[in-house]
Amino acid sequence: MAKYKVIAFDADDTLWVNEPYFREAEDQFAKLLSIYETENKIQQELYKVITGNIPLYGYGVKSCILSMIQCATELSNNKLPATITKQILEIGKNMLTKPIELLPGIVEVLETLSKDYTLIVLTKGDLLDQEKKLERSGLLNYFHHVEVMSEKNPEGYQRVLNHLDIAPKDFLMIGNSLKSDILPVLEIGAKAIHVPFHSIWQFETVAQEVMDIHDYPTLSSIKKIVNFL
Amino acid sequence: MAKYKVIAFDADDTLWVNEPYFREAEDQFAKLLSIYETENKIQQELYKVITGNIPLYGYGVKSCILSMIQCATELSNNKLPATITKQILEIGKNMLTKPIELLPGIVEVLETLSKDYTLIVLTKGDLLDQEKKLERSGLLNYFHHVEVMSEKNPEGYQRVLNHLDIAPKDFLMIGNSLKSDILPVLEIGAKAIHVPFHSIWQFETVAQEVMDIHDYPTLSSIKKIVNFL
Repeated sequence: MAKYKVIAFDADDTLWVNEPYFREAEDQFAKLLSIYETENKIQQELYKVITGNIPLYGYGVKSCILSMIQCATELSNNKLPATITKQILEIGKNMLTKPIELLPGIVEVLETLSKDYTLIVLTKGDLLDQEKKLERSGLLNYFHHVEVMSEKNPEGYQRVLNHLDIAPKDFLMIGNSLKSDILPVLEIGAKAIHVPFHSIWQFETVAQEVMDIHDYPTLSSIKKIVNFL
Repeated sequence: MAKYKVIAFDADDTLWVNEPYFREAEDQFAKLLSIYETENKIQQELYKVITGNIPLYGYGVKSCILSMIQCATELSNNKLPATITKQILEIGKNMLTKPIELLPGIVEVLETLSKDYTLIVLTKGDLLDQEKKLERSGLLNYFHHVEVMSEKNPEGYQRVLNHLDIAPKDFLMIGNSLKSDILPVLEIGAKAIHVPFHSIWQFETVAQEVMDIHDYPTLSSIKKIVNFL
């Protein structure tokens, strides 16, 4: 018998590859600005600008590109040539049109689980971009509901559960980010399974002490979900 | 007795002032670039860039600012000084932090209608920005559900109705844009009331012929909704 009524999947780096594209974009950015600073310093400054702008811009490609442009004008002491600004805009447009690379085994897992469970997607980031990625992924039909959350915190998850009218005990979240997919879900009394991805954004990392006090299973691959359940 | 189960409100220029802020931002942009072109030409080019980028960027302030920066690099023949780029970013940040100016009578209307109807908000634009505006508006408690749609087309509305499990006959939409709030709602067999705002974005305008063949009431102020219902 099904243990849960609803299984929710994170999208970026759980269903498909995402983080490496951001790392790649940041490397391109650092190279473009290497006339002003070391690439290491550029990456550090960019991180500060991006995370500083999250309350205002939120997550996603458009926010990242706006922060890149701000960071570039600052690093150049307002001398940034427009040709570089243009190339930063291009980095963003390339990210927004990248083909979707599904993680191994995703289709088989969704095919199997969709027979016994209601599957949904809970992702954060930019609304339009995430919807379009889901469409391009070919996975849309497996999901009963898709929700793009502005922030994955306990309140956000509780709102989704209220809205779908399900109790925490009937809800399971699967994702790669402890900070966004696991800890806030455990906090509202639901269950979560951690499936790490080889690359994680610095902003999403969690201290070892925090990880140690929480109880959640970690699987090395999404393919192991079916047997685990 | 209540005629509808759910009444949905558009947000921008239905609950609060929005369009004039975009016009103001465009005027500031045109002034910043007036060293390169007439303000009229700049406005025309900006409109082309913004609407051309909608499939990729969607709606909202961040999309508008990215398009402004692209338009500025183009108009300057890649000679745009970084100081202007920086000022364009500032225009965006100001837009994202503007206080909310509610339209007259909104609180009274929501107070009255919320006694007999389930009220929701259906808006398009940027997820985080719209959520934050709703929070700042102080109106959040009147609404049972808030949904930011990437595009307000018949499929989008149908998805919302399915999701909320309501029939089209039980659904009424109120908004200022014929293109986004009225016509797609009539198309799925639900009802809509048009409450025009004095300023509308060119992209949202609809030909007179299209308006003539559709049947919907127009009210000159949201305050007239209560008596009308």
